[in-house]
This record gives sequence, structure tokens and C-alpha cells, in this order.
Amino acid sequence: MKRPSGRAPHQLRPIRITRNYTRHAEGSVLVEFGDTRVICTVSAEAGVPRFLKGQGKGWLTAEYGMLPRATGERMAREASRGRQGGRTLEIQRLIGRSLRAALDMSKLGENTLYVDCDVIQADGGTRTASITGAMVALVDALAVLKKRGALKGDPLKQMVAAVSVGIYQGEPILDLDYPEDSDAETDLNVVMTDAGGFIEVQGTAEGEPFQPEELNAMLALATQGIRELFELQRAVLAD
Amino acid sequence: MKRPSGRAPHQLRPIRITRNYTRHAEGSVLVEFGDTRVICTVSAEAGVPRFLKGQGKGWLTAEYGMLPRATGERMAREASRGRQGGRTLEIQRLIGRSLRAALDMSKLGENTLYVDCDVIQADGGTRTASITGAMVALVDALAVLKKRGALKGDPLKQMVAAVSVGIYQGEPILDLDYPEDSDAETDLNVVMTDAGGFIEVQGTAEGEPFQPEELNAMLALATQGIRELFELQRAVLAD
Amino acid sequence: MKRPSGRAPHQLRPIRITRNYTRHAEGSVLVEFGDTRVICTVSAEAGVPRFLKGQGKGWLTAEYGMLPRATGERMAREASRGRQGGRTLEIQRLIGRSLRAALDMSKLGENTLYVDCDVIQADGGTRTASITGAMVALVDALAVLKKRGALKGDPLKQMVAAVSVGIYQGEPILDLDYPEDSDAETDLNVVMTDAGGFIEVQGTAEGEPFQPEELNAMLALATQGIRELFELQRAVLAD
Amino acid sequence: MKRPSGRAPHQLRPIRITRNYTRHAEGSVLVEFGDTRVICTVSAEAGVPRFLKGQGKGWLTAEYGMLPRATGERMAREASRGRQGGRTLEIQRLIGRSLRAALDMSKLGENTLYVDCDVIQADGGTRTASITGAMVALVDALAVLKKRGALKGDPLKQMVAAVSVGIYQGEPILDLDYPEDSDAETDLNVVMTDAGGFIEVQGTAEGEPFQPEELNAMLALATQGIRELFELQRAVLAD
Amino acid sequence: MKRPSGRAPHQLRPIRITRNYTRHAEGSVLVEFGDTRVICTVSAEAGVPRFLKGQGKGWLTAEYGMLPRATGERMAREASRGRQGGRTLEIQRLIGRSLRAALDMSKLGENTLYVDCDVIQADGGTRTASITGAMVALVDALAVLKKRGALKGDPLKQMVAAVSVGIYQGEPILDLDYPEDSDAETDLNVVMTDAGGFIEVQGTAEGEPFQPEELNAMLALATQGIRELFELQRAVLAD
Amino acid sequence: MKRPSGRAPHQLRPIRITRNYTRHAEGSVLVEFGDTRVICTVSAEAGVPRFLKGQGKGWLTAEYGMLPRATGERMAREASRGRQGGRTLEIQRLIGRSLRAALDMSKLGENTLYVDCDVIQADGGTRTASITGAMVALVDALAVLKKRGALKGDPLKQMVAAVSVGIYQGEPILDLDYPEDSDAETDLNVVMTDAGGFIEVQGTAEGEPFQPEELNAMLALATQGIRELFELQRAVLAD
Repeated sequence: MKRPSGRAPHQLRPIRITRNYTRHAEGSVLVEFGDTRVICTVSAEAGVPRFLKGQGKGWLTAEYGMLPRATGERMAREASRGRQGGRTLEIQRLIGRSLRAALDMSKLGENTLYVDCDVIQADGGTRTASITGAMVALVDALAVLKKRGALKGDPLKQMVAAVSVGIYQGEPILDLDYPEDSDAETDLNVVMTDAGGFIEVQGTAEGEPFQPEELNAMLALATQGIRELFELQRAVLAD
Repeated sequence: MKRPSGRAPHQLRPIRITRNYTRHAEGSVLVEFGDTRVICTVSAEAGVPRFLKGQGKGWLTAEYGMLPRATGERMAREASRGRQGGRTLEIQRLIGRSLRAALDMSKLGENTLYVDCDVIQADGGTRTASITGAMVALVDALAVLKKRGALKGDPLKQMVAAVSVGIYQGEPILDLDYPEDSDAETDLNVVMTDAGGFIEVQGTAEGEPFQPEELNAMLALATQGIRELFELQRAVLAD
Repeated sequence: MKRPSGRAPHQLRPIRITRNYTRHAEGSVLVEFGDTRVICTVSAEAGVPRFLKGQGKGWLTAEYGMLPRATGERMAREASRGRQGGRTLEIQRLIGRSLRAALDMSKLGENTLYVDCDVIQADGGTRTASITGAMVALVDALAVLKKRGALKGDPLKQMVAAVSVGIYQGEPILDLDYPEDSDAETDLNVVMTDAGGFIEVQGTAEGEPFQPEELNAMLALATQGIRELFELQRAVLAD
Repeated sequence: MKRPSGRAPHQLRPIRITRNYTRHAEGSVLVEFGDTRVICTVSAEAGVPRFLKGQGKGWLTAEYGMLPRATGERMAREASRGRQGGRTLEIQRLIGRSLRAALDMSKLGENTLYVDCDVIQADGGTRTASITGAMVALVDALAVLKKRGALKGDPLKQMVAAVSVGIYQGEPILDLDYPEDSDAETDLNVVMTDAGGFIEVQGTAEGEPFQPEELNAMLALATQGIRELFELQRAVLAD
Repeated sequence: MKRPSGRAPHQLRPIRITRNYTRHAEGSVLVEFGDTRVICTVSAEAGVPRFLKGQGKGWLTAEYGMLPRATGERMAREASRGRQGGRTLEIQRLIGRSLRAALDMSKLGENTLYVDCDVIQADGGTRTASITGAMVALVDALAVLKKRGALKGDPLKQMVAAVSVGIYQGEPILDLDYPEDSDAETDLNVVMTDAGGFIEVQGTAEGEPFQPEELNAMLALATQGIRELFELQRAVLAD
Repeated sequence: MKRPSGRAPHQLRPIRITRNYTRHAEGSVLVEFGDTRVICTVSAEAGVPRFLKGQGKGWLTAEYGMLPRATGERMAREASRGRQGGRTLEIQRLIGRSLRAALDMSKLGENTLYVDCDVIQADGGTRTASITGAMVALVDALAVLKKRGALKGDPLKQMVAAVSVGIYQGEPILDLDYPEDSDAETDLNVVMTDAGGFIEVQGTAEGEPFQPEELNAMLALATQGIRELFELQRAVLAD
């Protein structure tokens, strides 16, 4: 088996996380998984949605978008079509759940964090890149809130990162780019904490159904890849 | 550990599938997983969406809805709010992918199958009940199409069924009802083929992250539960 | 003249009203006029719309929908089209006005009743079946509110029921099913109180205009039919 | 009983119909029922909606709107709210059905007539004024189409006109203005042909239910009023 | 050069402003620039939008619409299409900005003025006619508010009027009608105060780019034309 | 007078145009006017909109968007609000008109060019930066189309660039950043061709009206600034 990308099965693409990528947001990161490039910002606003009012807790919500020509063919702009598609809603719900798992909301105070992940260039794995990058922007945003005295403690429970794995020509591979993803039999997105637990596991058989042992092989590959991503996050945040 | 429902950890709720539930659709089923009740219809129309035209293949697409008072609190009607929510879109995409896995589209001819799953009463597990019930309606619809001479062979590759599993007070349990689902630490939806492969595996940690061995225990439970569902589908279709 | 249904001109279809059809709503009924089947729920919520705030009065509002394949041909789901059609809005306005006529709002307290009529299977007369069935669900819902101590007296002023009549091949007939309705020259929907007054009279000439004497003959037929419906409502509520 | 308007019970408001009110439309009329003023245009376009293609028949469809400050309180503009309300849709469906009753579609050729009724100033009875005025614009539009050689005969089967009647302080009155309408117990809109048949009868009890004899008294009053409207239409068209 | 309209280059069309055109609005005007006819109403409501609350200042906002057959070809009704087009939004923003320039908001009190400009018949220059006519309706509305004691002084800082100019066959012309506008190389809309300053200058090269000296010639023509419009406004308001 | 930015009145911000910024689009540029950063892509698709079919001509259309946190305060995402705002539509119409002025559509062949300008970071002047940057992406896209043999000649008639000017504390200044723009009395956007003609001139008095001589001073400043921008475009394209 040879990957279209030429990478070894367990090899991540070159990953880059650039902090303070834009100026206005409390946290702002450009994350690159190879040719996949996503701007992740975290914006803090005082106040919480109605269903949380008066409970002394905070909230985090996420939105996801792609520039129309982030992809090989131009896709219609969702703002001009007048609605977000099912894929967009599915992804932004995943990002929101994943990052909420990183936080202790009772220490966030009555603040809302808006995570915006906007894909500038897509080459597979945009949702997992978004989670991994937004996690860094989230840490930066919490530091800003702390300086403002807006927190009731340290809301950061754990780090979160994500990667995709798949079965390609019968073998598990890590961090699929678009050509690999298009041909893979199975596609699995995995979100983990730095303590080694799973937050989300979403696997889909595109062609043939997958077997328990294939699932386990993919999860092992994902676990290893995410461990590398945690190191990278730590290194970037240490700068 | 005692389940709120009083069931044993590996015990399904009483499942009932009533065929020919309504009169107009090519396939029409009422599926009940305990108090969860869903009407599943399959409607066949000649022709395919534009992206498939001229390829001699068919298509299947799914939509999902809940009656406003299917739930404990009345929810705003999506038709009057003017858009389907993210949860709805996510579920109907899952149903569509799952049922497409049952079919060989090249034998369906240029026909489109519309699967509609409408929840009359919700008590947890509506998406997995929808898939399991709609599979039966799909078989009935194919029989109607066959009689009409609209098929190019037998499009049915395999049966598909689905169930939810979770971790409740540290233990894996099968087929969660709403009170169990609300308190579970982890929620996992599993879609399988009758040959024993996975079509979809979607797990979410609601509270604590889950570990690989917990995932495997849940998958084993799901595999056993789905086996029972396949027997039930077969028995119902044999009538 | 022979009706397609084989019924006598003044003969209703078999009518069935099943109370407590679903579990969550304050009132919940399945109403069947022959093959027309509608789920009617009444949901009570504390509070009133803004235009009524502070007046000590309650409110009732209605919504109507059809499952996509309730009809012979599948109709696009209004939730996914992003708007309710004119027919839907017209019918739900009619249901709301009709049921409000049954109530003394000043005794309802500051509560809002949401009536949802969802057609599972359509065979003509869905709006009149909805009104007749929802009236029973409304009585049940009021009993629940009374037990909760949420009322300021008995808001039930009078019972309301509805039926369709028409001119078919020159003769007035009662309670048209779909094939009769499609061929009728005139279609008239009548809503009455159990004291014998009219709440709504909506007649439309589909083909030839109708004459005053035809209108009176249809109204007489409707009056008789609705009297039977009131007996049926009473019998069902007495159980 | 004294009407707020000071009119006798059977007395219409001053009615004026101004033809060729605007320049572009095939038919264009300003209709005034007292202070109610509506611009009615009829626009002809070659072609028919998809469901009629290839049948050699024409079609007529109607739309209705109010300028935001046509009423005592400004109402939000439907174009900026992003949807037409239920009342609007109900009225434009009524106008469309009423005017289609005037035409033999098989003689219209494959043309579509768009009737637009836009209320400039509202003082009760806008829907019946719209129908009565649009009928005149329709005759003018047919004359234009005839000159263009676009017709397959004379599509005009009969004239149509409409008026509202009601029960006010226990007595039937004709052609209610807004203050009368607000206080009436019953409101009845009647559409008739010049041959004396009913096209639409839509009665609603706003307060007390109405009795058959009240309905008949109202219909008699409407019949007389509409007869006057037909004379007026004829006089205006003769100019 | 001969204008299609036969007018001299610096000649306005016949302008008419009819006050109190409809009955309900605080200010209501029919403005006619030749065959262009627009109803302008100004509606006053107590209260201001949220972003202004508690500042003791008022607000003015504008909306613009066209009747579907105001134009040579019928245009789809924006209310039924479900959104206002870009041209509509652009024009109503221009009208709002222009009329706000006439007012000292701090003297308006916490009132909101809604300006509605609805084009009954279009023949070029609808936006500039709207501004010029709405200005008169605004003065009338302020007089009503003054009588009600709702003002904190005289909010009227200055009068505002607008006209279009263009380059037609190489020469600047004033107040273009539709045929002239369609053929003009450049189209320039100018809004001025009666003290002679510019509020808005919006020029677009439809064909060839325009030169500074052409711009200045057009501005001179506009200045002269707007001076005539101010005289006309004054005369109308003096009646 | 001292500009908040410290720049001389006639001084542009540092301008940077980075070609080939993303990989998929036929033309793709990152344009920076100081802290204002916009991604401009040009996508080519075969075919034209319906109103142009069969004329052998091409078309260019533009869309504009801002990332939610491109600004100081996070703005709601237009895709999730379900409609583009008036400002967005106004700007994208301006961009489209400006770039169409650069092209001879008859030489473009039946191709449509989609220009997408997405603001990553806003600091004033986003619309003029968009036009200036998209012009470069357009040239690159035309080169790609030429290589593909999709053109019928060279469609590039002239270069186009744009800048904003304003009156700040009584003096004309060039290329306003956000703090300058917020305080300026007048804001003028100017689009020119490299032959020195005006394509668009859009001036708005935010505070005091502006005088003809102020307008001329601003235009002179804009002309000089745009000349620098043309040099910059040329230099960038020469690389």
C-alpha cells in the first residue's frame, strides 16, 4: 500500500499553529495540517444564553465556515444561499462539544466564548484541524479573560485535540488529506483529551463496513497522532 | 448499578415493528422501541437528483422530524421557525448514509427513494429506532418497485440496523431510554450490517472521557443488541 | 347519484377518537374520519404572548402539518423547504379561531394552549377532523390544568366540532373523502357549537357557482353530521 | 341600531374604480370602497407554470400586499420580515380562486396572468375591494391580450364581484368599514358571479355564533350589494 | 444631442408633491417626477432601537419597495421571494442616511420615525424622488409630533432634496427618465441640503469612465436642479 | 491636524499584495492595507447566467464577507443569521461593477468569474482594498483561462483600483483606517481606471455636508493614491 501523499501510514502532515494570527479576537490562531488551513478565533463576551442565566456558569459555542473557494470547486456561499448546510451544522456542533469538554464552566463565570473556525484552504481533515487549532486559541483567550479579572478560577480542565484516521486499501492510515479521504473505505474522526480519554469517536464506512479489529487499529493510530498534536500544542503555547 | 428502567444492562426495550402502517407510501412502518415511536415511510419516485443523471443509478435520501409535542416540553415546529435545526440535519444525514449502505444503487435503476422518519413520541434512541424501522419499510418499498418492474436487479445488498449504547454509572448498558440517556456519561450510536460490520459508530462523552476498553465493551453490547434487532426484522418481514 | 365511497349522502365515515394517544402532551388524541388520521395534541405553557400580557387572560394558538407521505404523492417537507405553505397557514388559522370559540379566555388564566394537528394519513377532510379531534384533546388538557390549579374557573364555554359537506353530481353529500372532494362542484367546511350556532362557514365553488338553496341544503346536512360528532365526542369523553 | 359610519344597513360606501391607473400593466385599476384604496394590476406573461405545461391552457395567480402604513398602526414590511403572513396568503389565495372562476382557461392560451392587489389605505373590506377592482383590470388585460393575438377565444365566462357583510349589534349590515368590522359579531365575505351564483362564502363568528337565519339575511344583503357592484363595473368598463 | 424625453439638458420633469396622500400616517406624500410615482409615508412611534436606549435621542430609518408591476416587466414580489434584493437595501440605506442628515436627533426625543417609500410607477429616478418627497412627509410628521408634545425642540436642521444627473451622448443631463438612464454612460445621484452642501454623491460609470470635469459639470447641473426642488418643497409646504 | 495614524494626509498605509495565496482558485490574492487584510479569489466556471445565454459573452459577479471576528466586536455570522446584511450587499455590488469595468465581456467567452472577497481582519477601507486586490487576482485568473484556451481574445481592457478618502478635522486625508473613518466628517470611496477615469465615486457626509471644493480636493488625493496603487499592482504582477 502506498499513500497518495507518500507519507508513512502513521505519519502526520506537517502541522503548524500560528498564534495571534489576527488582532481583534481574544484568541486567534492559524492552524495548518499540510495544505488544510483554518483560522480559529475565540471571542469572549460577558453574559450567557438565556437557558443558563443566573447559574453563575459560562458557555462556549462554535461556528464553522469555509470560504467559497477553499475547495477544488467553488461552493456557493452559505450566507448568500440563506442557510448553513447540514455538513456545516454537524461540524460546528462537533467543535462545540469537543471544546466544552476542555472547560469547567462553573469557573468561567457568566461569559460566553464564541469559537469561529473558518477554512481558508481545504485539503481534508478540516474539522479535526479546527478542534486542534481552536484549543490553542481557547487557552490564549482564557489568559486574556484572566487578566481582565473575568474568571472565577481556572476553567481549563484538560487539553483537547483531534485527528482523522481511515482505512485505505485495507490498511489504517493517519491524518488523511483530501485525495486519501476520497478513496478511503472508512473515515474516522477522533477527539481526545491529553489524559488519554475519548471525547468523540465518529466513524463512517464509505464503502465496505469495518470490523472491530479495524476500528481498534484506527483508534491506536489516532491515539499516537493526537499525542504528537498535544506536544505541538504545548510547544506552541510555551513560546 | 440499577438502570432507571429496571432493565438488565444488556436488555433491549420491547421492540415492535408494524408494517403497512399508513396507506399511501411504498413502504410504511411504525417502529416502537419502548415508548419511542417513529413512523417511517419510504416513497419511490422515478428520476434522480441532477448530480446522478444519466448514470443509470438510483439514490436514497432521508428526512427526519419530530412532532412538536413528541417530547416532554413542546418544541417549536421547524416548519414554522423556517429552518431545520442542526440536530435534525445531523440525524437525517446519518439515516441516509446508513440506509444507502444497504443498497446497490446500480440495481435500483434511476429511482429516488425518500425515507421519512417522523417521531410521534420520543423516549430516547429516536435515530437508531428510525434506522431499524426504516430498513423494514425499505424492503417493502423495494418489493413494490419490483412488482412495478422498475428495478434492474435486486438492490438489497444487506440488512442494516442500529442501537444506542452508553456508559451509565460506570457500566455499559444497551438501548438507553430518555432518563438513562440524560444521565449517561457516554452515548454511542452504532449502525451495523447483518454480516456483522460497522456502518457508523458515533460516540460522545457527555461527562467523563471514555477509555478504549469501555468503547469495546459498548460495541460488544451493541453487536449483541443489533443481532436481536436483525432477528426481529426478519420475523416481521416473514409475516 | 352514487358516491364513490358507496355511502349514503348523509352518512359520515366511521369516526374514531382515541384519547391519550401520546404520553407527553396535556391532551393527546388520534382522530380518524375513515382513512383520514390526525394526531391532535394540546400543550399548556404558563405565560401568554406579548400582546396579552398583564390582562389576566389566556390564549390558544394552533399549528397544522402533514407528514410528507400522508398523501398519495409525497409532498416536500415544509421544514426543509423553509416555509409553511398558504394552505397550511389557512388551515391552522381556522383551527385556532374555531377552538378559541370554545373557551372563555378570562377563566384560562395567563396560560397558552398550543394545539398541534399533524396529519399522518390524508383522505379528505383533514381540517374538520383536526378541529373535531383537537376539541377532545382540549377538554383533556383543561382537566390537567385544573388539577394543577392553573385555572381561574372553568374556561369551557361550549363544545365545537366540524365537518365538510359538498355538492357532488348535483346533490349535497356529507363528509367527503378525497376522491369525492376532488370531483365535487362545491366544498363547504362548517364549524359549529353544540348549542347549534355557526363558528365558521367556508364554501368554495370548485366548478359551477352554487345557489342559496344548495347552500342551505349543505348547511342542513352539516348540522346533522356535526350533531353526530358531538354525541361521539361526549361518548369518548365519558369513558 | 346605528352604524358608526352613519350608513343605512344595506348601504354601500361610495365606490370608485379608476381604470388605467398605472402605465405598465396590461390592466391597472385603483379601486376605492370609501377610504379603502387598493391598486389592482393584471400582468400577462407568455408561458404557464410547470404543472400546466403542454395542456394548451392558461393560468391566473394572485398576490396581495399592504403598504406598511396602510393601517392605523404601521405594520412590519413583509419583504423585510422575510415572509408573508398567514392573513396575506389566505387573502391572495381567495383572490386567485375568485378570479379564476371568471375565466375559461382553455381559451386563455398558454399565458399566465399575475394579479397584484396592493392596499394603499385600509379601512375594512380590502379583500372584497381587491376582487371587485381586479375583475375590471382583468377585463382590460384580456383586451390587450386579444389585440396581441395571444388568446384562443374569449376567456371571459362571467363577471365576479365581492362584498363583506356582518352582524352588527344584532342586525345585518353591508360593506363594513374598519370600526364596524372591529365591533361586528360576525364577518362574512361573499364572492358572486353576475349570474347570481356563489363562488366563495366565508363567514366567521368573532363573538357569538351565528344562526342559519342570520346567515341567510347576510347573504341576501350581500347579493343586493354585489348586484350594485356589477352595475358599477359595467358602467366603468363602458367608458 | 437630443434627449429621448425631448427636454433641455438642464430641465427637470414636471414635479408634483401631494401632501396628506393617505390618511393614517403622521406624514404622507405622493411624489411624482414625471411618470415616476412614489408614496412616501413617515410613521412615528415612541421608543428607539436598542443601541440608542437611554440616550434621550431619536432615530429615523427607511424602507423602500416597488409594486411588482411598477416596472415595464413584472418583477417578483420581494415579500413572496422571502428577501429584499441588494438594490432595495442599497436604496433604503441611502434614503435613511439622507433624511437623518436633516434632523438633530437630540431634539427628536426618544421617538423612531419610519420612512416608507413605495414606488407605484417607475420611470427612472425613484430613489431621488423618494428622498425629495419623503422630506416633505417628514416635515408634516414633525408637525404632528410637535402637536402631541413629543419633541424636545425643533429637530429640523435643514431641508434635503435629491436628483439624478448623467452623461448622455457625451453631455450632462438632469433628472433622467428610464430610457435616458438605460442609455447614459454615467449615472450620478446627488443629495444636497438647502444650505448648498452635499450629503451623498454616488456616481457610476455604466460605460466609459468619467473625468473630473464631467463630474463637476454634472454636480453643477444637480445643484441647479435641487435648488428648484427646494423651491417646490417650500411652495408645497406653504399651502 | 494630526491623523490618529500619524501618517501624512496624502500617505497610504503600507500596502501588500501576495499572489497565489491559496491553492485552488484560478486567481488568489491576500491584500493588506495596513491592518486591513482581505483574501480575494477569482474562480472561473464555464457557462453564464440565464440572462446572458447564447450571446457569446462572459460575466463577472462578486461576493463579499467578513469573518465574524474580523472586527473589534464579534459580529453575527451572516450564514447563521440566514441573510446577508445591506452593507454586505452594497459592497459586493460595488466590487462587481468595478471589476466588470476592467473587462471586455465579449472576449471572455461564455465563462463566469466569481470574485470572493473575504475580510480576515478589518481596519477600515475593506471595500477599496477588496477591489484593488481582486484586480490582481483577476489578472491571474485570466492568465489561467488563456492557458486553458477558454478565451476569445484578451478581455482585459484596463486596470482598476480603489481607495478611500475623507475629510478629517476639516482636512482631506487619504486611505482612512478605522479610527480615522469613525471620526471623519466625510467618507468618499473612489474607483478609477489606470487611464485616469472614474468608475465609481461614492461620498457620504457623516457629519457636516461637504462642499464642491472639498469634493475636488478629496478626488485629487484619491487620484494620487490610486496612481500609487496601480504602480504597486504592476510591480506585483511583474514578479
